Amino acid sequence: MREQIDLAVIEGDGIGPEVIAEARKVLRAALPEGVTLNETEYPFGANHYLATGEILDDASLDQLAKHDAILLGAVGGDPADPKLAGGILERGLLLKLRFAFDHYINLRPSKLWPSAISPLANPGEIDFVVVREGTEGLYVGNGGVVRAGTEHEVANELSVNTARGVERTVRYAFELAMTRDRRLTLVHKKNVLVNAGVLWNRIVNEVAEEYPEVAVDYLHIDAATIFFVTNPSRFDVIVTDNIFGDIITDLAGAVTGGIGLAASGNLNPEGAFPSMFEPVHGSAPDIAGTGKADPTAAILSVALLLQHFGFDDAAKRVEAACEQDLRNRSGEARSTSEIGDAIAALLA
Amino acid sequence: MREQIDLAVIEGDGIGPEVIAEARKVLRAALPEGVTLNETEYPFGANHYLATGEILDDASLDQLAKHDAILLGAVGGDPADPKLAGGILERGLLLKLRFAFDHYINLRPSKLWPSAISPLANPGEIDFVVVREGTEGLYVGNGGVVRAGTEHEVANELSVNTARGVERTVRYAFELAMTRDRRLTLVHKKNVLVNAGVLWNRIVNEVAEEYPEVAVDYLHIDAATIFFVTNPSRFDVIVTDNIFGDIITDLAGAVTGGIGLAASGNLNPEGAFPSMFEPVHGSAPDIAGTGKADPTAAILSVALLLQHFGFDDAAKRVEAACEQDLRNRSGEARSTSEIGDAIAALLA
Ligand SMILES: CC(C)[C@H](C(=O)O)[C@@H](O)C(=O)O
Ligand SMILES: CC(C)[C@H](C(=O)O)[C@@H](O)C(=O)O
Repeated sequence: MREQIDLAVIEGDGIGPEVIAEARKVLRAALPEGVTLNETEYPFGANHYLATGEILDDASLDQLAKHDAILLGAVGGDPADPKLAGGILERGLLLKLRFAFDHYINLRPSKLWPSAISPLANPGEIDFVVVREGTEGLYVGNGGVVRAGTEHEVANELSVNTARGVERTVRYAFELAMTRDRRLTLVHKKNVLVNAGVLWNRIVNEVAEEYPEVAVDYLHIDAATIFFVTNPSRFDVIVTDNIFGDIITDLAGAVTGGIGLAASGNLNPEGAFPSMFEPVHGSAPDIAGTGKADPTAAILSVALLLQHFGFDDAAKRVEAACEQDLRNRSGEARSTSEIGDAIAALLA
Repeated sequence: MREQIDLAVIEGDGIGPEVIAEARKVLRAALPEGVTLNETEYPFGANHYLATGEILDDASLDQLAKHDAILLGAVGGDPADPKLAGGILERGLLLKLRFAFDHYINLRPSKLWPSAISPLANPGEIDFVVVREGTEGLYVGNGGVVRAGTEHEVANELSVNTARGVERTVRYAFELAMTRDRRLTLVHKKNVLVNAGVLWNRIVNEVAEEYPEVAVDYLHIDAATIFFVTNPSRFDVIVTDNIFGDIITDLAGAVTGGIGLAASGNLNPEGAFPSMFEPVHGSAPDIAGTGKADPTAAILSVALLLQHFGFDDAAKRVEAACEQDLRNRSGEARSTSEIGDAIAALLA
């Protein structure tokens, strides 16, 4: 077991600093005795970009690469600001990190937590994990434009999918299924995207032979969205590509009562590069500084971080503390730091 | 106003023939006096393919091209049948028709009909239309594979988007918004798919200048799925690309109580080719022949057909009859033909 975690902290914008402060508080309270935590703060985000012109340059990337993990708050400024248009920050920071650090597993658990209010009339028990591929598909940025800006423009987007990229993702998903209810669903659109779909399907079937205990099924992405609202309990582990994973994890967040409680890990499981942990929610500039932000998603992301480093007990304790805290809620409004304090206290 | 409709009927598989029989019944009852209906049946579908080896050859396509419109039931056999694997029927029949007949508008109204049970706790009033582009994007089939079947396989899918293709779709959507609540939402993923996203965004903004009465907004596809379950009333007209449209129309069907009531039109608005009308649901082989299929989606597709030919009053009457029939339902089980008869009777 490692004795030290060297953590890069990118608080980011809006409510990012507030929720990250609580996440760090809980991380410190949860770390097993004898494990040292070094934290280094980095200023990246919309504010930093607007102030300095830097989104994330290569020197900064080299700095970040030296850490064991990254804890990220939320990145994003005013959506109407033309200086932030075109997804410049999303691609220059978030996606750049995912690609540079080969975060091929985008891990997104979905759970209907106590006191969370699902918009579904009969949500049932919801507890599944989406394993979203993070470094391929339509996210590779290999598109292009011909005759841009004219009435004859042609705009192409290329989805690139490799056997290597799909296989390592699928293997991770099967291993995860073995630690859970042993059910795995591939979500794709293989009847239309026949090239990528055949590849995903083949790899899932091949790897499935090594995991005879795992029950495997397949859903088209369109049909999958139906089950998210009619029977989300049917899912245990979902494995899917980058864009479909993007879509269904937001939907999953919504049916479990809002992405306000959704955690995520951008993992390089082998540890060749630092993995990155972030709440799924955004920077919510409208409530920034008011103390209204719920830090639970950021704190649950810390649980994923602990798990990533093999501190399974500590991870489970953080999850249990969040669950207990959610159960304790009785409608009284607590501030961001009150929630963080309460969860940290439950760990003492 | 035209005096004749020359209709090609493809009943298809499973419950297709049953629901199409009722749709034809209602179409005959609803047609304005003096309009002649010629109906020609075509046998295409899974059964026809398995029996004859033909999915849809060029001679058949030429035949179909001579008609004014196509009424399609549902196409699809046993999903486990290896002879139907790889989406061969979907691509060889359904998508072939959409592309050959330049069905660039895939029109999919979503409405929470009386007696329909939404899985949402508080669905509110749901009544919007998705205008899905039908002939471009990831559906063009321009992908490919390198080193197929090996551990070094690379599978590519190309999304092709043209100014011409996007503009005609966007114009249609604005025109539609003018006949409705004058709100239009572009759904895309422009922060990641920057080439296609910039094109869609530019065209929407350009065309918007000609429609100052229409309020325009934009949602990323992932965020859009959240609104489908938290606040579907926010939508009036949605315009989006082929794959995002595929996904959100199934989701929309689900939140309005199941795709069993969802109609669709594959339109070539100028009439250069026959437009095609089909219920969104599939062939449902499990209930085929039992008389349990609800023909309402097929009948609502007839309303879209009537509208397409400018018979707006007749279209509205069919819609109103369906709505009345749904309101009349009291839980008693009626057969497919009883429902068709009841709706036809309401038109008398
Ligand atoms: C911000 C955006 C680039 C990102 C994505 O599309 O992956 C986000 O939606 C997410 O899911 O983390
Ligand atoms: C059957 C399939 C090819 C089709 C599509 O993807 O368009 C269907 O899902 C639809 O929405 O009509």
